[in-house]
Amino acid sequence: MEIRLPKKSFFEALAALERVIPTRSSNVVLTQLWVEANPDGLLLKGSNGEIDLEISVPAEVDGQGARLVPGQLIGQVVRNLPGELVEMALEGNELTLESGSFSTRLTTGDPDEYPRFNFSSSELVRLPAAELARALQRVRYAASNEDYRAIFRGVQIELHPGRMRAVASDGFRLALYDLKLPIESEKVFVVPARSADEIVKVLERTEGEVSLGIEGGHLTLSAAGFRMAVALMEGEFPEYERVIPTNFVFEARVNAPALRESLKRVKVLADRNNHRVDLLFSEGSLQVVAEGELGRGAERLEVEAPAEAEMTLAYNAEYLLDALGPVSGVANLRFSGAASASVVQDAEDEGYLAVVVPLRV
Amino acid sequence: MEIRLPKKSFFEALAALERVIPTRSSNVVLTQLWVEANPDGLLLKGSNGEIDLEISVPAEVDGQGARLVPGQLIGQVVRNLPGELVEMALEGNELTLESGSFSTRLTTGDPDEYPRFNFSSSELVRLPAAELARALQRVRYAASNEDYRAIFRGVQIELHPGRMRAVASDGFRLALYDLKLPIESEKVFVVPARSADEIVKVLERTEGEVSLGIEGGHLTLSAAGFRMAVALMEGEFPEYERVIPTNFVFEARVNAPALRESLKRVKVLADRNNHRVDLLFSEGSLQVVAEGELGRGAERLEVEAPAEAEMTLAYNAEYLLDALGPVSGVANLRFSGAASASVVQDAEDEGYLAVVVPLRV
Repeated sequence: MEIRLPKKSFFEALAALERVIPTRSSNVVLTQLWVEANPDGLLLKGSNGEIDLEISVPAEVDGQGARLVPGQLIGQVVRNLPGELVEMALEGNELTLESGSFSTRLTTGDPDEYPRFNFSSSELVRLPAAELARALQRVRYAASNEDYRAIFRGVQIELHPGRMRAVASDGFRLALYDLKLPIESEKVFVVPARSADEIVKVLERTEGEVSLGIEGGHLTLSAAGFRMAVALMEGEFPEYERVIPTNFVFEARVNAPALRESLKRVKVLADRNNHRVDLLFSEGSLQVVAEGELGRGAERLEVEAPAEAEMTLAYNAEYLLDALGPVSGVANLRFSGAASASVVQDAEDEGYLAVVVPLRV
Repeated sequence: MEIRLPKKSFFEALAALERVIPTRSSNVVLTQLWVEANPDGLLLKGSNGEIDLEISVPAEVDGQGARLVPGQLIGQVVRNLPGELVEMALEGNELTLESGSFSTRLTTGDPDEYPRFNFSSSELVRLPAAELARALQRVRYAASNEDYRAIFRGVQIELHPGRMRAVASDGFRLALYDLKLPIESEKVFVVPARSADEIVKVLERTEGEVSLGIEGGHLTLSAAGFRMAVALMEGEFPEYERVIPTNFVFEARVNAPALRESLKRVKVLADRNNHRVDLLFSEGSLQVVAEGELGRGAERLEVEAPAEAEMTLAYNAEYLLDALGPVSGVANLRFSGAASASVVQDAEDEGYLAVVVPLRV
């Protein structure tokens, strides 16, 4: 079996797989990369037990077969190759690889020792890859890092006729992103937040549509050039819509990047324990204030707010920064009171909505 | 006391001081920054107990006095300021700082609580700052990280009439850099390697000459804009010149960056324990080879070597890479045998010399 391919496309595929293949694992075979030659080109596969990834790379191939090679090693070798072209040949159990003045001979392993990949060919829906990536990316920050309520460590994806929603929450805050899409099915499932990050990484390099299918507790995403299978979490989010306020005392419009910058400056002075910053609305103006044991910081910001709005709202600065994160222009801030949940929306992207609860002070 | 200065120069000085001032310390006062206003401008000082640094920043000053402010905090505040100008005022124990729309009030501390700085005004010698930085930078890698033979965790600086030498070694390898300079004194002292790194950082921003003085176990470096005092190590290097070979079996000339790239490619396959790579000289050619449990890597390199030189030399790849590191063009490799020390020199910079001992195989 002989394979010839450009170093660049080989390396790009390996870089994506290196994100998945563990450098160490109690299941040692998972540290291996599955290299498969077939008449269409080169197929590279890897898994960390939670995420399976398969990338196809165009290559000139003579013969066919599959072997396992150490994943980290092959990545390091290919990254540093001196030539533009890579030539590989498999003889018995030995893979030789040549590029420019460099040559290497690697011992390979038996693919029969590798666990079954979880890719399925069932198709539930086809979505624009960029839109799905956008939705996951916008809400992912709100997922929990804690063990408390395990389901909140995932991002819930809801497919409904005509629309899709991605939602994440840690029980204290929530972010959701709605998309209008010509979906016919009805399905709710939860992807571990870390797997959602990897899905975003792969989708960012994907043009056109991606197909989603669910089988045996795994979501398979496929598009030209790759397939990815991720283990789904068991269960669904509890009724979360009731925490989204619908009645508001007043609303304000503010430039989100300017408010973020101001929060970053002022939070330096905040109490180290609760990161408290106060938003003071008065006579149609906004002041951001923080005070801790080392001193006090304050800044006045331009805002569109009703002149009669007089309210001080205390937030964990980090939560407010996170909620404003996806908003690149004007944010709509909607307040339901100093002790009840506030809503952050993107004035230029109605799909995004975040809920932040003020600190009890 | 009132101070006005550009954010940029304030921040640059703070960034240099942040490298020295610890974020945490058993001696809490060391986490503070000494802020001093005098008719010439602003004087900022900090210390980690090993290194004292003082930077003077041009500023419009009204009144004079000194206070302590939390070092990390002031750095974070100034880094994020919205305006180009910073205005500070001290009233009682409170420092107010304003810039653009932002204002802050910081509680300050009493400078009497700060330990004595070790700056001295004695002058031993004046050296070009860039040359001293260059010498320290070229040899620093060879200093030991281990506790074994504590003195080797420093860089030795030798002043002799007409020349200066910087030398570092960990007992297994050695690097030295010689400079011809109009020095009249004779003095040998050892600077901790980490302090040498900080000296390089400060000297890189320094134009012209730097003055060196030694007093009370501390080296003081001073130039326009700064003073730095570093605690010296006790003792001197043992007789190291005897490990530098003077008789050679043969010499080779090789492009150092090309050999480094080749070593980086091939070492991926090396034994993980000793990082062994072999240099095979034969018939005027050079092959770089490594072989470990995962396979074998090899590369042929262009070299100028005598046709009759037939020798295989085994090295720790990391040591050879380090020794070649400071050489940007052609390296002279001088071999005294497969089991005795080799010398690496820079064909374009005769000041540099490194000794690497082959692995025993």
